[in-house]
Amino acid sequence: MTHPRALLFDVFGTVVDWRSSVAREIERIAEQMGFAVNGHDFATAWRKRYQPAMAKIREGNRGFVPLDILHMENLRDVLAEFSIDCLSETEIDDLNHVWHRLDAWGDAVGGVNRLKSRHIVATCSNGNIALMVNLARHTGLNWDMVLGGEVAQAYKPEREAYLRSAAFLGLKPEECCMVAAHNEDLAAARSFGLQTAYVERRNEYVASGGEPRPASQDWEWVASDFIDLAAKMGC
Amino acid sequence: MTHPRALLFDVFGTVVDWRSSVAREIERIAEQMGFAVNGHDFATAWRKRYQPAMAKIREGNRGFVPLDILHMENLRDVLAEFSIDCLSETEIDDLNHVWHRLDAWGDAVGGVNRLKSRHIVATCSNGNIALMVNLARHTGLNWDMVLGGEVAQAYKPEREAYLRSAAFLGLKPEECCMVAAHNEDLAAARSFGLQTAYVERRNEYVASGGEPRPASQDWEWVASDFIDLAAKMGC
Repeated sequence: MTHPRALLFDVFGTVVDWRSSVAREIERIAEQMGFAVNGHDFATAWRKRYQPAMAKIREGNRGFVPLDILHMENLRDVLAEFSIDCLSETEIDDLNHVWHRLDAWGDAVGGVNRLKSRHIVATCSNGNIALMVNLARHTGLNWDMVLGGEVAQAYKPEREAYLRSAAFLGLKPEECCMVAAHNEDLAAARSFGLQTAYVERRNEYVASGGEPRPASQDWEWVASDFIDLAAKMGC
Repeated sequence: MTHPRALLFDVFGTVVDWRSSVAREIERIAEQMGFAVNGHDFATAWRKRYQPAMAKIREGNRGFVPLDILHMENLRDVLAEFSIDCLSETEIDDLNHVWHRLDAWGDAVGGVNRLKSRHIVATCSNGNIALMVNLARHTGLNWDMVLGGEVAQAYKPEREAYLRSAAFLGLKPEECCMVAAHNEDLAAARSFGLQTAYVERRNEYVASGGEPRPASQDWEWVASDFIDLAAKMGC
């Protein structure tokens, strides 16, 4: 096994803390508008509709549409589920863009910068290009490139999402390493020939009462955060 | 007219000095291998085949292929034209990658960094993703995103190359400004609704005996280099 030339990063949960950011935003809106909501429950309910929405596209029952659109469709459903009907169309659209301004985990920006010294660093997320570009500018993340879903026109864990991302960099799958906090993402990447790096993000689940999800396979790298990964990768 | 939110950069000639970089590389090879070549003539001859190669694709006579492949086909022709037959396949492939390691104009990295403080900065070049990513790492250019040819699957000056690049950023054409040293690139961008910024790069032509090509229309911005453009754009 040769050292990878490119690191492909999962983003939601691995690089950014979507749950706290979404929770904070809906709670701020609720306070301003005078309704009650549990922010973590709202964030979890919104995110719960994420995989089923993409499943229709993966299964060929719908053409590819960018994640912003799926997020918007899901948001309307969640607002109805939570009986929140006081938001204008402009306010709903603005809330949908919360995914463009999530907070990064504390080690993410510094860790990616260190990892970039030795590797191409690119996103391989299901988030669309505009979302990823705005998120990088919001957080200060310095990607070499946004790849994944929209550029590949395929949603992870479809093989094309991984293999086209590698090919766009002019690299073989085994020259790339998928970096994620999620075992299922890494399992798919490994099955298509990529190297794998698991990064622990306990607070993605534990902070809202869920169970931790430790590494489930012998991934090539296992790290507690991006700084630890950088050290283990010799950066 | 509102201030643009994103700047889309032409790259070859506008951001990087392709001619001197290619000339230097073939002259270095010639010295090592003991043959004679005029580097600027070689670079000009290689580049001369650039537009005709893309024309076939623009006209629908060939499916989209990344620029690395067109460069390679053209390189074989130019090597034959110059009667250079002593390079191995590995050496030819390495020479073809000179486009991944061109030098930036002296003001480019600092200028893009300044412009990035207020705008999304993305490439809108006909260069493919791997080429643009490697070029950015070689030069230290900090793009927010690589767009253009391969991402849009269309070669400038086709409308899709400009309009899809804007759309991938979630922006309207008029929210984007094309930045180029070439009037024909700006004319196409303007015809599709983008704002335009002309940057003078006299040495792209004059250094090899060509005529300067000053601004030919009343582009929204006209600047002597990227630092001047940044000042004019309030960065």
